Amino acid sequence: MRTPVSPIQITRVEHGSATVTDDILVSEEPLEIRLGHGPEEDRKEIQLSVTMRTPGNDEELAMGFLFTEGLVTDMSQVLRVVPCENVKEEERGNVVRVELHPAVEIEPAKWQRNFYTSSSCGVCGKTSIGAVHTQCARPIAPFGPIDPKVITALPGRMREAQTVFKHTGGIHAAALFDREGKLLILREDVGRHNAVDKVIGALLLSTRSQPGIGPGQLTTDNYQLLVSGRAGFELVQKCLMAGIPMMAAVGAPSSLAVQLAKKGGLTLVGFLSGERFNVYSGG
Amino acid sequence: MRTPVSPIQITRVEHGSATVTDDILVSEEPLEIRLGHGPEEDRKEIQLSVTMRTPGNDEELAMGFLFTEGLVTDMSQVLRVVPCENVKEEERGNVVRVELHPAVEIEPAKWQRNFYTSSSCGVCGKTSIGAVHTQCARPIAPFGPIDPKVITALPGRMREAQTVFKHTGGIHAAALFDREGKLLILREDVGRHNAVDKVIGALLLSTRSQPGIGPGQLTTDNYQLLVSGRAGFELVQKCLMAGIPMMAAVGAPSSLAVQLAKKGGLTLVGFLSGERFNVYSGG
Repeated sequence: MRTPVSPIQITRVEHGSATVTDDILVSEEPLEIRLGHGPEEDRKEIQLSVTMRTPGNDEELAMGFLFTEGLVTDMSQVLRVVPCENVKEEERGNVVRVELHPAVEIEPAKWQRNFYTSSSCGVCGKTSIGAVHTQCARPIAPFGPIDPKVITALPGRMREAQTVFKHTGGIHAAALFDREGKLLILREDVGRHNAVDKVIGALLLSTRSQPGIGPGQLTTDNYQLLVSGRAGFELVQKCLMAGIPMMAAVGAPSSLAVQLAKKGGLTLVGFLSGERFNVYSGG
Repeated sequence: MRTPVSPIQITRVEHGSATVTDDILVSEEPLEIRLGHGPEEDRKEIQLSVTMRTPGNDEELAMGFLFTEGLVTDMSQVLRVVPCENVKEEERGNVVRVELHPAVEIEPAKWQRNFYTSSSCGVCGKTSIGAVHTQCARPIAPFGPIDPKVITALPGRMREAQTVFKHTGGIHAAALFDREGKLLILREDVGRHNAVDKVIGALLLSTRSQPGIGPGQLTTDNYQLLVSGRAGFELVQKCLMAGIPMMAAVGAPSSLAVQLAKKGGLTLVGFLSGERFNVYSGG
């Protein structure tokens, strides 16, 4: 069983004097995502990617990753997501397998190309923005006016709900709220893109009972996503892929994040702290 | 000419009232790294990777990346690093070309495998730690005792020298100091691994006059590296590859970062702020 935190003994230095003490670290371990058709014995399987992540909610991370990279566009393509059992002892708990519907072809070359173009974002900002835009099934619905008090209340609610951060002080978080600011899903991870993938994956897995859910069909029109760090290009991309119309960040956005947000119709808020925030795109 | 910052008009909201104002964002654009032998007309060229980065010091970023990934182990393997001219207008300034010595074979399959194993870190922590350790030419020399006052002075010196942060408040930094805490090299980037690659690349390019410099031959024994954010696995890996014996982070380390630091003999300091810090590995 992999855990999100690990105990450690450290030396704490304060004003020049040192004390040895127990402490807790956030765990960082590699997660391998495999794709296959039938059960694990099926040899037609590819190793899609390895990402460094904080253990926990790995099935969500795999689903969110596949969906926001455009490799899975509809949950009916996915039969189930399971931890791999037939792995070496030291890999146990660090490998998940996504079982696809038999009708979905697994072509390593195609998947790798997709992965290259969408995660590496092409070579210039324009190319990458175009690529993301093409992949989104429909434009984002504008988020519409909202009381600033709802927005300024979000960080406090996220922080309150963060369990790993309380213990380690060193982890990113992503939280999905509804229009009224009610917390729906919170996930923590050492990588902020992983935290966002986990939130989106949780949303996707919660819609398993609704066949045919795909980009633009997720009922995300009234959702807003808060991230604990800065707003990079790839986080805006993930919101657009999931149809989330509003993203707020505690930190600063980058130039390409703002460009993509404007092009995609995403409302982008940054430097959200206390009673203040900046609006970089949208209303 | 790509610039590290971009102007933008934003809406600032404070206590519920909004003002439109000019602001400055940190730039984030893709950098493509190509490898070839002779001049640009040479068709034997591979596209190695695309990374999102803040423009500036791109040649250093490319060198630091190749070196810390173990793809180039000796500066005599590199003839020069130049911006590509024969590219589309919108890609200009976002593509660099590393010209290798004719004796260095360019085998896409081999390079990609290398890239996979070292950047994705294998599948389990043990595998990845083993892989990194094998690649390092020699163990790190222990950093030895140091006055805590030298360490607590580092963040202030780095912050003072950060030009992009002053304007945008949203960028990572990495700074190389000597044992006495004198600032040697500072680089800023939207990605913290890029900032570290730029510092190490700057160091490598500054040794061009000394042929045969490789891992373990860089005179980094008395250097310490400070990073503005958290200390992840990949930053510890980069320090070990470059032979830097001490890394301090303003934020928290991860479990795998500490494991790798202990194994590699790196002194690892975290939560460095004011008169306080924690020692996670080494003296």
